[in-house]
Amino acid sequence: MKRPLILVTNDDGISAPGIRNLIRIMNDFGDVVVVAPDGPQSGMGHAITIEAILRCNKVVIDNGLQTEYSCSGTPVDCVKLAVNQLLDRKPDLCISGINHGSNSSINVIYSGTMSAAVEGALEGIPAIGFSLLDYASNADFTEAEKYIRKITQTVLDKGIDKGVCLNVNIPKIKENEAIKGLKICRQANANWEEEFEKRVDPKGKTYYWLTGKFVNYDKGTDTDEWALANHYVSVVPVHFDMTDFPSIPTLNKLFSDE
Amino acid sequence: MKRPLILVTNDDGISAPGIRNLIRIMNDFGDVVVVAPDGPQSGMGHAITIEAILRCNKVVIDNGLQTEYSCSGTPVDCVKLAVNQLLDRKPDLCISGINHGSNSSINVIYSGTMSAAVEGALEGIPAIGFSLLDYASNADFTEAEKYIRKITQTVLDKGIDKGVCLNVNIPKIKENEAIKGLKICRQANANWEEEFEKRVDPKGKTYYWLTGKFVNYDKGTDTDEWALANHYVSVVPVHFDMTDFPSIPTLNKLFSDE
Repeated sequence: MKRPLILVTNDDGISAPGIRNLIRIMNDFGDVVVVAPDGPQSGMGHAITIEAILRCNKVVIDNGLQTEYSCSGTPVDCVKLAVNQLLDRKPDLCISGINHGSNSSINVIYSGTMSAAVEGALEGIPAIGFSLLDYASNADFTEAEKYIRKITQTVLDKGIDKGVCLNVNIPKIKENEAIKGLKICRQANANWEEEFEKRVDPKGKTYYWLTGKFVNYDKGTDTDEWALANHYVSVVPVHFDMTDFPSIPTLNKLFSDE
Repeated sequence: MKRPLILVTNDDGISAPGIRNLIRIMNDFGDVVVVAPDGPQSGMGHAITIEAILRCNKVVIDNGLQTEYSCSGTPVDCVKLAVNQLLDRKPDLCISGINHGSNSSINVIYSGTMSAAVEGALEGIPAIGFSLLDYASNADFTEAEKYIRKITQTVLDKGIDKGVCLNVNIPKIKENEAIKGLKICRQANANWEEEFEKRVDPKGKTYYWLTGKFVNYDKGTDTDEWALANHYVSVVPVHFDMTDFPSIPTLNKLFSDE
Protein backbone atom coordinates (compact mmCIF):
# COMPACT_ATOMS: atom_id res chain seq x y z
CA MET A 1 0.00 0.00 0.00
CA LYS A 2 1.19 3.48 -0.88
CA ARG A 3 2.18 5.58 2.10
CA PRO A 4 -0.22 8.47 2.70
CA LEU A 5 0.94 11.99 1.84
CA ILE A 6 0.63 14.16 4.94
CA LEU A 7 0.76 17.96 4.87
CA VAL A 8 1.86 19.48 8.18
CA THR A 9 1.54 23.13 9.18
CA ASN A 10 0.96 25.30 12.26
CA ASP A 11 0.70 28.91 13.39
CA ASP A 12 3.52 29.09 15.94
CA GLY A 13 6.12 28.94 13.18
CA ILE A 14 8.19 26.14 11.66
CA SER A 15 10.71 25.97 14.52
CA ALA A 16 8.18 25.72 17.38
CA PRO A 17 8.51 22.57 19.53
CA GLY A 18 4.86 21.73 18.85
CA ILE A 19 5.32 21.28 15.10
CA ARG A 20 8.73 19.60 15.52
CA ASN A 21 7.04 16.94 17.70
CA LEU A 22 4.14 16.66 15.25
CA ILE A 23 6.50 16.12 12.30
CA ARG A 24 8.35 13.40 14.22
CA ILE A 25 5.05 11.61 14.95
CA MET A 26 3.67 12.03 11.39
CA ASN A 27 6.83 10.54 9.83
CA ASP A 28 5.57 7.22 11.26
CA PHE A 29 2.26 7.55 9.38
CA GLY A 30 3.31 8.60 5.91
CA ASP A 31 5.37 10.82 3.62
CA VAL A 32 5.42 14.21 5.31
CA VAL A 33 5.65 17.58 3.61
CA VAL A 34 5.82 20.56 5.96
CA VAL A 35 4.75 23.98 4.71
CA ALA A 36 4.72 26.25 7.73
CA PRO A 37 5.10 29.94 8.57
CA ASP A 38 8.65 31.26 9.01
CA GLY A 39 7.60 32.96 12.26
CA PRO A 40 4.73 33.25 14.74
CA GLN A 41 1.30 33.67 13.12
CA SER A 42 -0.91 33.13 16.16
CA GLY A 43 -4.27 34.87 16.05
CA MET A 44 -4.13 35.20 12.27
CA GLY A 45 -7.48 33.44 11.84
CA HIS A 46 -8.35 32.74 8.22
CA ALA A 47 -6.18 35.60 6.92
CA ILE A 48 -4.66 35.28 3.46
CA THR A 49 -1.97 37.42 1.82
CA ILE A 50 -3.42 39.32 -1.12
CA GLU A 51 -1.78 42.74 -0.86
CA ALA A 52 1.79 41.42 -0.56
CA ILE A 53 4.06 38.79 -2.05
CA LEU A 54 4.77 35.39 -0.57
CA ARG A 55 8.19 33.83 -0.08
CA CYS A 56 8.52 30.08 0.28
CA ASN A 57 11.85 28.29 0.59
CA LYS A 58 12.88 24.68 1.03
CA VAL A 59 14.67 24.24 4.35
CA VAL A 60 16.35 21.47 6.34
CA ILE A 61 15.84 21.80 10.09
CA ASP A 62 16.55 18.33 11.47
CA ASN A 63 17.48 14.90 10.16
CA GLY A 64 13.90 13.65 9.82
CA LEU A 65 12.52 12.12 6.62
CA GLN A 66 10.14 15.02 5.91
CA THR A 67 10.47 17.64 3.18
CA GLU A 68 10.08 21.18 4.54
CA TYR A 69 9.21 24.62 3.25
CA SER A 70 9.33 27.81 5.30
CA CYS A 71 6.79 30.36 4.13
CA SER A 72 6.41 34.10 4.76
CA GLY A 73 2.61 33.95 4.77
CA THR A 74 -0.20 32.96 7.10
CA PRO A 75 -1.11 29.35 7.97
CA VAL A 76 -3.92 29.45 5.38
CA ASP A 77 -1.44 30.72 2.75
CA CYS A 78 0.77 27.73 3.62
CA VAL A 79 -2.04 25.25 2.91
CA LYS A 80 -2.97 27.00 -0.35
CA LEU A 81 0.68 27.11 -1.47
CA ALA A 82 1.18 23.45 -0.59
CA VAL A 83 -1.92 22.19 -2.37
CA ASN A 84 -1.82 24.45 -5.42
CA GLN A 85 1.88 24.97 -6.01
CA LEU A 86 4.28 22.73 -4.10
CA LEU A 87 2.71 19.25 -4.00
CA ASP A 88 2.27 17.12 -7.09
CA ARG A 89 -0.80 15.40 -5.66
CA LYS A 90 -3.52 16.14 -3.16
CA PRO A 91 -2.47 15.22 0.41
CA ASP A 92 -4.34 12.40 2.12
CA LEU A 93 -4.27 14.31 5.38
CA CYS A 94 -3.67 17.88 6.51
CA ILE A 95 -2.43 18.15 10.11
CA SER A 96 -1.96 21.45 11.92
CA GLY A 97 -0.25 22.06 15.26
CA ILE A 98 0.65 21.02 17.85
CA ASN A 99 -0.51 24.44 18.92
CA HIS A 100 1.04 25.88 22.06
CA GLY A 101 -2.16 26.81 23.91
CA SER A 102 -5.86 26.12 23.64
CA ASN A 103 -7.94 26.43 20.48
CA SER A 104 -11.14 25.34 22.16
CA SER A 105 -14.53 27.06 21.81
CA ILE A 106 -14.39 30.54 20.20
CA ASN A 107 -10.61 30.35 19.75
CA VAL A 108 -11.35 28.28 16.64
CA ILE A 109 -12.08 31.48 14.69
CA TYR A 110 -9.01 33.40 15.88
CA SER A 111 -6.59 30.51 15.53
CA GLY A 112 -4.24 30.26 12.57
CA THR A 113 -3.69 26.60 13.45
CA MET A 114 -7.39 25.78 13.20
CA SER A 115 -7.91 28.00 10.14
CA ALA A 116 -5.22 25.97 8.36
CA ALA A 117 -7.20 22.82 9.18
CA VAL A 118 -10.43 24.47 7.97
CA GLU A 119 -8.63 25.43 4.74
CA GLY A 120 -7.60 21.78 4.37
CA ALA A 121 -11.26 20.75 4.73
CA LEU A 122 -12.19 23.41 2.16
CA GLU A 123 -9.76 21.80 -0.28
CA GLY A 124 -11.44 18.45 0.35
CA ILE A 125 -8.61 17.04 2.50
CA PRO A 126 -9.33 15.26 5.82
CA ALA A 127 -7.85 17.71 8.30
CA ILE A 128 -7.07 17.84 12.01
CA GLY A 129 -5.82 20.65 14.23
CA PHE A 130 -4.07 19.58 17.45
CA SER A 131 -3.57 21.92 20.41
CA LEU A 132 -2.09 21.38 23.85
CA LEU A 133 -3.31 23.54 26.73
CA ASP A 134 0.21 24.54 27.70
CA TYR A 135 1.90 27.72 26.50
CA ALA A 136 5.31 26.73 27.84
CA SER A 137 7.98 26.30 25.17
CA ASN A 138 9.21 23.24 27.11
CA ALA A 139 5.71 21.71 27.32
CA ASP A 140 5.55 17.93 27.69
CA PHE A 141 3.97 16.37 24.59
CA THR A 142 4.13 12.75 25.86
CA GLU A 143 0.46 12.35 26.84
CA ALA A 144 -0.64 14.37 23.79
CA GLU A 145 1.29 12.04 21.50
CA LYS A 146 -0.82 8.98 22.44
CA TYR A 147 -4.02 10.74 21.44
CA ILE A 148 -2.50 12.29 18.32
CA ARG A 149 -1.46 8.81 17.16
CA LYS A 150 -4.87 7.29 17.95
CA ILE A 151 -6.88 10.05 16.24
CA THR A 152 -4.61 10.22 13.19
CA GLN A 153 -4.80 6.44 12.71
CA THR A 154 -8.60 6.47 13.02
CA VAL A 155 -8.97 9.28 10.47
CA LEU A 156 -6.55 7.58 8.06
CA ASP A 157 -8.39 4.25 8.42
CA LYS A 158 -11.98 5.42 8.42
CA GLY A 159 -12.01 8.97 7.01
CA ILE A 160 -14.15 11.88 8.08
CA ASP A 161 -16.99 13.61 6.24
CA LYS A 162 -15.87 15.83 3.36
CA GLY A 163 -15.67 19.49 4.35
CA VAL A 164 -15.25 18.67 8.04
CA CYS A 165 -12.09 18.99 10.10
CA LEU A 166 -11.41 18.08 13.71
CA ASN A 167 -10.50 20.58 16.41
CA VAL A 168 -8.61 18.47 18.95
CA ASN A 169 -7.55 20.01 22.26
CA ILE A 170 -5.49 18.14 24.81
CA PRO A 171 -5.69 19.12 28.48
CA LYS A 172 -2.61 19.93 30.52
CA ILE A 173 -2.54 17.52 33.41
CA LYS A 174 -0.51 17.37 36.55
CA GLU A 175 2.03 14.60 37.11
CA ASN A 176 -0.20 12.54 39.41
CA GLU A 177 -3.24 12.79 37.11
CA ALA A 178 -4.15 11.06 33.83
CA ILE A 179 -6.20 12.01 30.76
CA LYS A 180 -9.52 10.18 31.10
CA GLY A 181 -10.16 9.57 27.39
CA LEU A 182 -11.59 11.58 24.50
CA LYS A 183 -14.97 13.18 24.03
CA ILE A 184 -16.70 14.30 20.83
CA CYS A 185 -18.02 17.77 21.70
CA ARG A 186 -19.66 20.90 20.42
CA GLN A 187 -17.93 24.29 20.51
CA ALA A 188 -18.69 25.92 23.87
CA ASN A 189 -20.34 29.33 23.94
CA ALA A 190 -17.41 31.20 25.44
CA ASN A 191 -15.62 34.40 24.60
CA TRP A 192 -12.84 36.79 25.55
CA GLU A 193 -13.44 39.83 27.69
CA GLU A 194 -10.82 42.11 26.30
CA GLU A 195 -8.86 44.69 28.15
CA PHE A 196 -6.50 46.93 26.26
CA GLU A 197 -3.38 47.98 28.05
CA LYS A 198 -2.72 51.60 27.11
CA ARG A 199 0.93 52.68 27.13
CA VAL A 200 2.99 55.64 26.03
CA ASP A 201 6.02 55.13 23.78
CA PRO A 202 9.40 56.91 24.27
CA LYS A 203 8.23 59.64 21.88
CA GLY A 204 5.13 60.32 23.96
CA LYS A 205 2.63 58.65 21.63
CA THR A 206 -0.11 56.29 22.81
CA TYR A 207 -0.24 52.62 21.85
CA TYR A 208 -2.19 49.55 22.97
CA TRP A 209 -1.58 45.89 23.77
CA LEU A 210 -4.53 43.54 23.39
CA THR A 211 -5.05 41.44 26.52
CA GLY A 212 -8.09 39.54 27.67
CA LYS A 213 -9.74 37.12 30.00
CA PHE A 214 -11.44 33.97 28.72
CA VAL A 215 -15.00 33.54 29.97
CA ASN A 216 -17.12 30.41 29.50
CA TYR A 217 -20.86 31.26 29.46
CA ASP A 218 -21.83 27.68 28.62
CA LYS A 219 -23.16 25.35 31.33
CA GLY A 220 -23.46 22.36 28.97
CA THR A 221 -21.63 19.10 29.65
CA ASP A 222 -21.35 18.33 25.92
CA THR A 223 -18.90 21.16 25.20
CA ASP A 224 -15.15 21.19 24.60
CA GLU A 225 -14.66 23.43 27.65
CA TRP A 226 -16.43 20.90 29.89
CA ALA A 227 -14.38 18.01 28.46
CA LEU A 228 -11.07 19.82 28.96
CA ALA A 229 -11.95 20.97 32.49
CA ASN A 230 -12.74 17.32 33.29
CA HIS A 231 -9.45 15.97 31.92
CA TYR A 232 -10.75 14.66 28.60
CA VAL A 233 -9.30 15.34 25.16
CA SER A 234 -11.96 17.35 23.27
CA VAL A 235 -12.74 16.64 19.61
CA VAL A 236 -15.05 19.14 17.88
CA PRO A 237 -16.07 18.57 14.25
CA VAL A 238 -15.73 21.92 12.47
CA HIS A 239 -17.17 23.04 9.14
CA PHE A 240 -17.03 26.23 7.09
CA ASP A 241 -20.70 26.91 6.50
CA MET A 242 -21.35 29.88 8.75
CA THR A 243 -25.06 30.16 7.85
CA ASP A 244 -27.28 30.46 10.91
CA PHE A 245 -30.10 28.30 9.54
CA PRO A 246 -32.60 28.91 12.39
CA SER A 247 -32.58 32.63 11.51
CA ILE A 248 -33.70 32.13 7.91
CA PRO A 249 -37.49 31.83 8.60
CA THR A 250 -37.29 34.66 11.18
CA LEU A 251 -35.59 36.97 8.70
CA ASN A 252 -37.99 36.00 5.91
CA LYS A 253 -40.85 37.12 8.12
CA LEU A 254 -39.03 40.29 9.23
CA PHE A 255 -38.37 41.48 5.70
CA SER A 256 -41.70 40.40 4.17
CA ASP A 257 -43.63 42.40 6.79
CA GLU A 258 -42.59 45.64 5.12
CA MET B 1 -35.90 58.83 22.01
CA LYS B 2 -32.14 58.58 22.32
CA ARG B 3 -30.33 58.32 18.99
CA PRO B 4 -28.72 54.90 18.50
CA LEU B 5 -24.95 54.60 18.80
CA ILE B 6 -23.57 53.10 15.58
CA LEU B 7 -20.06 51.68 15.24
CA VAL B 8 -18.77 51.72 11.65
CA THR B 9 -15.75 49.83 10.33
CA ASN B 10 -14.50 48.09 7.18
CA ASP B 11 -11.50 46.28 5.73
CA ASP B 12 -10.65 48.49 2.76
CA GLY B 13 -9.35 51.21 5.08
CA ILE B 14 -10.83 54.38 6.54
CA SER B 15 -10.45 56.44 3.35
CA ALA B 16 -12.12 53.95 0.98
CA PRO B 17 -15.18 55.31 -0.88
CA GLY B 18 -17.28 52.42 0.46
CA ILE B 19 -16.91 53.39 4.11
CA ARG B 20 -17.17 57.13 3.35
CA ASN B 21 -20.58 56.46 1.74
CA LEU B 22 -21.58 54.19 4.63
CA ILE B 23 -20.68 56.86 7.21
CA ARG B 24 -22.73 59.48 5.32
CA ILE B 25 -25.75 57.11 5.32
CA MET B 26 -25.35 56.04 8.98
CA ASN B 27 -25.22 59.68 10.15
CA ASP B 28 -28.97 59.75 9.31
CA PHE B 29 -29.66 56.81 11.64
CA GLY B 30 -27.72 57.67 14.77
CA ASP B 31 -24.56 58.90 16.46
CA VAL B 32 -21.73 57.40 14.44
CA VAL B 33 -18.30 56.41 15.73
CA VAL B 34 -15.91 55.11 13.09
CA VAL B 35 -13.02 52.85 14.14
CA ALA B 36 -11.45 51.60 10.94
CA PRO B 37 -8.09 50.34 9.67
CA ASP B 38 -5.58 52.98 8.54
CA GLY B 39 -4.97 51.01 5.32
CA PRO B 40 -6.21 48.03 3.32
CA GLN B 41 -6.92 44.90 5.41
CA SER B 42 -8.75 42.82 2.82
CA GLY B 43 -8.47 39.06 3.28
CA MET B 44 -7.52 39.44 6.95
CA GLY B 45 -10.37 37.17 8.08
CA HIS B 46 -10.74 37.05 11.85
CA ALA B 47 -7.09 37.97 12.48
CA ILE B 48 -6.22 39.84 15.67
CA THR B 49 -3.00 41.58 16.65
CA ILE B 50 -1.38 39.79 19.57
CA GLU B 51 2.32 39.86 18.67
CA ALA B 52 2.48 43.60 17.97
CA ILE B 53 1.22 46.90 19.34
CA LEU B 54 -1.83 48.76 18.13
CA ARG B 55 -1.99 52.45 17.27
CA CYS B 56 -5.32 54.24 17.24
CA ASN B 57 -5.70 57.96 16.60
CA LYS B 58 -8.64 60.33 16.38
CA VAL B 59 -8.87 61.78 12.88
CA VAL B 60 -11.04 64.23 10.95
CA ILE B 61 -11.55 63.25 7.32
CA ASP B 62 -14.64 65.15 6.21
CA ASN B 63 -17.17 67.54 7.71
CA GLY B 64 -19.68 64.85 8.73
CA LEU B 65 -21.08 64.54 12.26
CA GLN B 66 -19.26 61.27 13.03
CA THR B 67 -16.32 60.78 15.39
CA GLU B 68 -13.48 58.85 13.75
CA TYR B 69 -10.47 56.79 14.80
CA SER B 70 -7.86 55.40 12.43
CA CYS B 71 -6.33 52.17 13.71
CA SER B 72 -3.19 50.22 12.78
CA GLY B 73 -4.84 46.83 13.39
CA THR B 74 -7.18 44.46 11.64
CA PRO B 75 -10.95 44.99 11.29
CA VAL B 76 -11.55 42.67 14.28
CA ASP B 77 -9.01 44.68 16.34
CA CYS B 78 -11.00 47.82 15.44
CA VAL B 79 -14.23 46.36 16.84
CA LYS B 80 -12.49 45.14 20.01
CA LEU B 81 -10.78 48.52 20.52
CA ALA B 82 -14.05 50.37 19.96
CA VAL B 83 -16.13 48.26 22.32
CA ASN B 84 -13.54 47.74 25.07
CA GLN B 85 -11.54 50.96 25.01
CA LEU B 86 -12.94 53.84 22.99
CA LEU B 87 -16.72 53.84 23.48
CA ASP B 88 -18.35 54.63 26.81
CA ARG B 89 -21.33 52.39 26.08
CA LYS B 90 -22.11 49.32 23.98
CA PRO B 91 -23.11 50.30 20.43
CA ASP B 92 -26.68 49.60 19.30
CA LEU B 93 -25.42 48.55 15.91
CA CYS B 94 -22.12 47.52 14.32
CA ILE B 95 -21.95 48.16 10.57
CA SER B 96 -19.08 47.07 8.38
CA GLY B 97 -18.41 48.03 4.78
CA ILE B 98 -19.40 49.01 2.19
CA ASN B 99 -16.91 46.44 0.95
CA HIS B 100 -15.49 46.94 -2.53
CA GLY B 101 -16.20 43.45 -3.93
CA SER B 102 -18.23 40.40 -3.01
CA ASN B 103 -18.26 38.71 0.39
CA SER B 104 -20.76 36.07 -0.65
CA SER B 105 -20.46 32.33 0.06
CA ILE B 106 -16.99 31.20 1.27
CA ASN B 107 -15.62 34.77 1.13
CA VAL B 108 -17.28 35.25 4.51
CA ILE B 109 -14.36 33.49 6.21
CA TYR B 110 -11.61 35.37 4.36
CA SER B 111 -13.22 38.78 4.62
CA GLY B 112 -12.07 41.31 7.19
CA THR B 113 -15.31 43.23 6.61
CA MET B 114 -17.45 40.22 7.53
CA SER B 115 -15.15 39.16 10.38
CA ALA B 116 -15.68 42.61 11.92
CA ALA B 117 -19.44 42.02 11.75
CA VAL B 118 -19.00 38.54 13.28
CA GLU B 119 -16.94 40.12 16.07
CA GLY B 120 -19.78 42.59 16.65
CA ALA B 121 -22.18 39.64 16.98
CA LEU B 122 -19.73 37.98 19.39
CA GLU B 123 -19.87 41.09 21.54
CA GLY B 124 -23.67 40.87 21.54
CA ILE B 125 -24.18 43.79 19.14
CA PRO B 126 -26.59 43.53 16.17
CA ALA B 127 -24.19 43.63 13.25
CA ILE B 128 -24.35 43.88 9.45
CA GLY B 129 -21.67 43.65 6.79
CA PHE B 130 -22.46 45.33 3.46
CA SER B 131 -20.62 44.53 0.24
CA LEU B 132 -21.09 45.74 -3.32
CA LEU B 133 -20.06 43.46 -6.18
CA ASP B 134 -17.95 46.16 -7.81
CA TYR B 135 -14.21 46.49 -7.21
CA ALA B 136 -13.99 49.89 -8.98
CA SER B 137 -12.92 52.75 -6.72
CA ASN B 138 -15.53 54.90 -8.49
CA ALA B 139 -18.31 52.32 -7.98
CA ASP B 140 -21.86 53.68 -7.94
CA PHE B 141 -23.39 53.19 -4.47
CA THR B 142 -26.82 54.68 -5.37
CA GLU B 143 -28.77 51.42 -5.70
CA ALA B 144 -26.86 49.90 -2.76
CA GLU B 145 -27.88 52.85 -0.57
CA LYS B 146 -31.60 52.09 -0.86
CA TYR B 147 -31.10 48.57 0.46
CA ILE B 148 -28.61 49.62 3.13
CA ARG B 149 -31.18 52.11 4.46
CA LYS B 150 -34.02 49.57 4.37
CA ILE B 151 -32.03 46.79 6.07
CA THR B 152 -30.50 49.09 8.71
CA GLN B 153 -33.93 50.50 9.60
CA THR B 154 -35.44 47.02 9.90
CA VAL B 155 -32.63 45.79 12.16
CA LEU B 156 -32.85 48.94 14.33
CA ASP B 157 -36.65 48.59 14.61
CA LYS B 158 -36.97 44.86 15.07
CA GLY B 159 -33.54 43.52 16.08
CA ILE B 160 -31.90 40.27 15.05
CA ASP B 161 -31.15 37.19 17.14
CA LYS B 162 -28.25 37.60 19.54
CA GLY B 163 -25.02 36.19 18.18
CA VAL B 164 -26.18 36.53 14.58
CA CYS B 165 -24.97 39.05 12.01
CA LEU B 166 -26.09 39.66 8.45
CA ASN B 167 -23.89 39.20 5.41
CA VAL B 168 -25.48 41.51 2.82
CA ASN B 169 -24.20 41.49 -0.75
CA ILE B 170 -25.50 43.87 -3.39
CA PRO B 171 -25.26 42.91 -7.05
CA LYS B 172 -23.66 45.17 -9.63
CA ILE B 173 -26.29 45.91 -12.21
CA LYS B 174 -26.12 47.51 -15.61
CA GLU B 175 -27.73 50.88 -16.28
CA ASN B 176 -30.85 49.47 -17.95
CA GLU B 177 -31.43 46.83 -15.24
CA ALA B 178 -32.84 47.04 -11.72
CA ILE B 179 -32.28 45.11 -8.49
CA LYS B 180 -35.30 42.81 -8.10
CA GLY B 181 -35.50 42.86 -4.30
CA LEU B 182 -33.80 41.05 -1.45
CA LYS B 183 -33.59 37.35 -0.62
CA ILE B 184 -32.71 35.66 2.67
CA CYS B 185 -30.23 32.96 1.68
CA ARG B 186 -27.83 30.33 2.89
CA GLN B 187 -24.09 30.50 2.16
CA ALA B 188 -23.43 28.81 -1.20
CA ASN B 189 -20.99 25.92 -1.35
CA ALA B 190 -18.39 27.66 -3.49
CA ASN B 191 -14.65 28.07 -3.28
CA TRP B 192 -11.56 29.53 -4.90
CA GLU B 193 -9.38 27.51 -7.22
CA GLU B 194 -6.05 29.11 -6.49
CA GLU B 195 -3.25 29.63 -8.90
CA PHE B 196 -0.01 31.06 -7.62
CA GLU B 197 1.88 33.30 -9.98
CA LYS B 198 5.57 32.51 -9.54
CA ARG B 199 7.95 35.39 -10.25
CA VAL B 200 11.63 36.15 -9.81
CA ASP B 201 12.70 39.33 -8.02
CA PRO B 202 15.53 41.64 -9.20
CA LYS B 203 17.95 39.71 -6.98
CA GLY B 204 17.03 36.38 -8.59
CA LYS B 205 14.90 35.04 -5.74
CA THR B 206 11.51 33.41 -6.24
CA TYR B 207 8.30 34.87 -4.90
CA TYR B 208 4.57 34.24 -5.37
CA TRP B 209 1.36 36.19 -5.86
CA LEU B 210 -1.86 34.53 -4.77
CA THR B 211 -4.47 34.59 -7.55
CA GLY B 212 -7.55 32.47 -8.02
CA LYS B 213 -10.77 31.76 -9.81
CA PHE B 214 -14.07 31.61 -7.93
CA VAL B 215 -16.05 28.42 -8.57
CA ASN B 216 -19.63 27.81 -7.44
CA TYR B 217 -20.32 24.09 -6.91
CA ASP B 218 -23.80 24.75 -5.54
CA LYS B 219 -26.87 24.24 -7.78
CA GLY B 220 -29.34 25.41 -5.10
CA THR B 221 -31.68 28.34 -5.71
CA ASP B 222 -31.68 29.29 -2.01
CA THR B 223 -28.03 30.44 -1.97
CA ASP B 224 -26.45 33.87 -1.97
CA GLU B 225 -24.72 33.10 -5.28
CA TRP B 226 -28.06 32.30 -6.93
CA ALA B 227 -29.66 35.47 -5.57
CA LEU B 228 -26.80 37.70 -6.75
CA ALA B 229 -26.67 36.08 -10.22
CA ASN B 230 -30.41 36.75 -10.49
CA HIS B 231 -30.14 40.43 -9.52
CA TYR B 232 -31.29 40.12 -5.91
CA VAL B 233 -29.59 41.52 -2.83
CA SER B 234 -28.49 38.47 -0.77
CA VAL B 235 -28.86 38.44 3.01
CA VAL B 236 -27.22 35.50 4.82
CA PRO B 237 -27.56 35.17 8.61
CA VAL B 238 -24.10 34.30 9.96
CA HIS B 239 -23.12 32.87 13.34
CA PHE B 240 -19.85 31.92 15.00
CA ASP B 241 -20.56 28.36 16.08
CA MET B 242 -18.48 26.34 13.66
CA THR B 243 -19.52 22.95 15.11
CA ASP B 244 -20.60 20.51 12.43
CA PHE B 245 -23.44 18.97 14.45
CA PRO B 246 -24.31 16.16 11.98
CA SER B 247 -20.79 14.75 12.46
CA ILE B 248 -21.13 14.30 16.23
CA PRO B 249 -22.98 10.92 16.17
CA THR B 250 -20.74 9.68 13.31
CA LEU B 251 -17.59 10.53 15.26
CA ASN B 252 -18.97 9.05 18.46
CA LYS B 253 -19.42 5.76 16.64
CA LEU B 254 -16.01 6.02 14.92
CA PHE B 255 -14.11 6.48 18.17
CA SER B 256 -16.14 4.07 20.29
CA ASP B 257 -15.49 1.23 17.82
CA GLU B 258 -11.90 1.05 18.95
